[in-house]
Amino acid sequence: MTYCVGINIDAGLVLLSDTRTNAGVDNVARFQKMFTWEVPGERVIVIMVAGNLSITQGVLTQINTDIEQAANGEDVETILNCKSLYRATEIVGGYMRALQKHHHEAMANQGISAGASMILAGQRKGGRQRLFMIYAAGNFIESTRDTPFFQIGEHKYGKPILDRVIQPDTSMEDAVKAVLVSMDSTLRSNLSVGMPLDLSVLLKDQYRVDTCYRIEQGDQNFARLSSAWSDALRHAFMELPEFHI
Amino acid sequence: MTYCVGINIDAGLVLLSDTRTNAGVDNVARFQKMFTWEVPGERVIVIMVAGNLSITQGVLTQINTDIEQAANGEDVETILNCKSLYRATEIVGGYMRALQKHHHEAMANQGISAGASMILAGQRKGGRQRLFMIYAAGNFIESTRDTPFFQIGEHKYGKPILDRVIQPDTSMEDAVKAVLVSMDSTLRSNLSVGMPLDLSVLLKDQYRVDTCYRIEQGDQNFARLSSAWSDALRHAFMELPEFHI
Repeated sequence: MTYCVGINIDAGLVLLSDTRTNAGVDNVARFQKMFTWEVPGERVIVIMVAGNLSITQGVLTQINTDIEQAANGEDVETILNCKSLYRATEIVGGYMRALQKHHHEAMANQGISAGASMILAGQRKGGRQRLFMIYAAGNFIESTRDTPFFQIGEHKYGKPILDRVIQPDTSMEDAVKAVLVSMDSTLRSNLSVGMPLDLSVLLKDQYRVDTCYRIEQGDQNFARLSSAWSDALRHAFMELPEFHI
Repeated sequence: MTYCVGINIDAGLVLLSDTRTNAGVDNVARFQKMFTWEVPGERVIVIMVAGNLSITQGVLTQINTDIEQAANGEDVETILNCKSLYRATEIVGGYMRALQKHHHEAMANQGISAGASMILAGQRKGGRQRLFMIYAAGNFIESTRDTPFFQIGEHKYGKPILDRVIQPDTSMEDAVKAVLVSMDSTLRSNLSVGMPLDLSVLLKDQYRVDTCYRIEQGDQNFARLSSAWSDALRHAFMELPEFHI
């Protein structure tokens, strides 16, 4: 399983992913799920992936093959040279669709899901920061001020805190705390979501990853936040008024 | 959809259910999901149901038919005259299994899930209070001191608070608050779980329903709890230490 969350607030973009994959509870591995492409000062794109690993790795390979070919002087449209973030998302969605078409039926015949989804976030010079969610069929949606965040993978445990806290004008500090608290709730309730975590912050109009931080098992910062949240929740609960029946 | 939760603590049993059913978002109805049988001073049993309504109504009909037949002097084993709560759960599980066998294939051919689950809770004179979860196959599990609660239906949004708060020695007042807060989180995040709510409290060794309370839309008590919880959560979040990266 996987849990990834991306937030688009006025101050910038915040992205957090876990790194656990599993094919059954007895087949657990660590795979990075957050990938970054930068042309510093010009364009930054971060993609997070969930679902079938053979599908998402296939998409990433095609993205990188395009970029290598363009770097070698070939006339190839890539997520780094295309005209907009919207177009970059179309390119990625197109690879997703093609891979689904290629693999879906054979996998379904084996009883295996080809399901996959992605979050694409970033900004190019001259454009605004954008956050997209790409579905298995290759179609996609963009975040709005009403719904400034997307989640993929095991999204339910970590959604209530985002619903209550995240607004377009939320500060970057609070948005970082919110994704970490959201991940903390998910880690507690679903064993197939696991440490370490990858956290990226893309400040508005910087066209680069401002902060990229790997939170390892035992990270003191995260442990302190997690334990403070546990205490605060229990305290908040104990202070609730009694329900008179 | 449905959300029901049952807690077995030292002080007694607490049960809470919503009342919304839906076949698609455009076909929503209100159906009670909590059912009580009492022989005051002798035995009390509460059943909560989730999943396909035709299956769960079928099980309830058979339970009530048995009881009517026994009341008419026939020699029928029922959940009210059988020797233990365990045996009562076996009877209910047997009806579940028989109905699944009868309907499952035809429903699957129509692309409809026959999935269903139930929580059975209660106590008979001479026995301890017990809490069971019954699966679609008719098999069942019992709560333990390690896991003193069961949920059926849309369980994820409301689980974190139960995980953090519920222990065997939790007070009845706190257990009532916990199921209501758990339901409140679920109501916010899943539109197919809806008011009114049914809340029952069975105090230990009373062999009857101590409290049975229907919480209607607009209930002041519930609105106050819900709003206090929102405020407390936001306050707890704002008080968290910053995450230094």
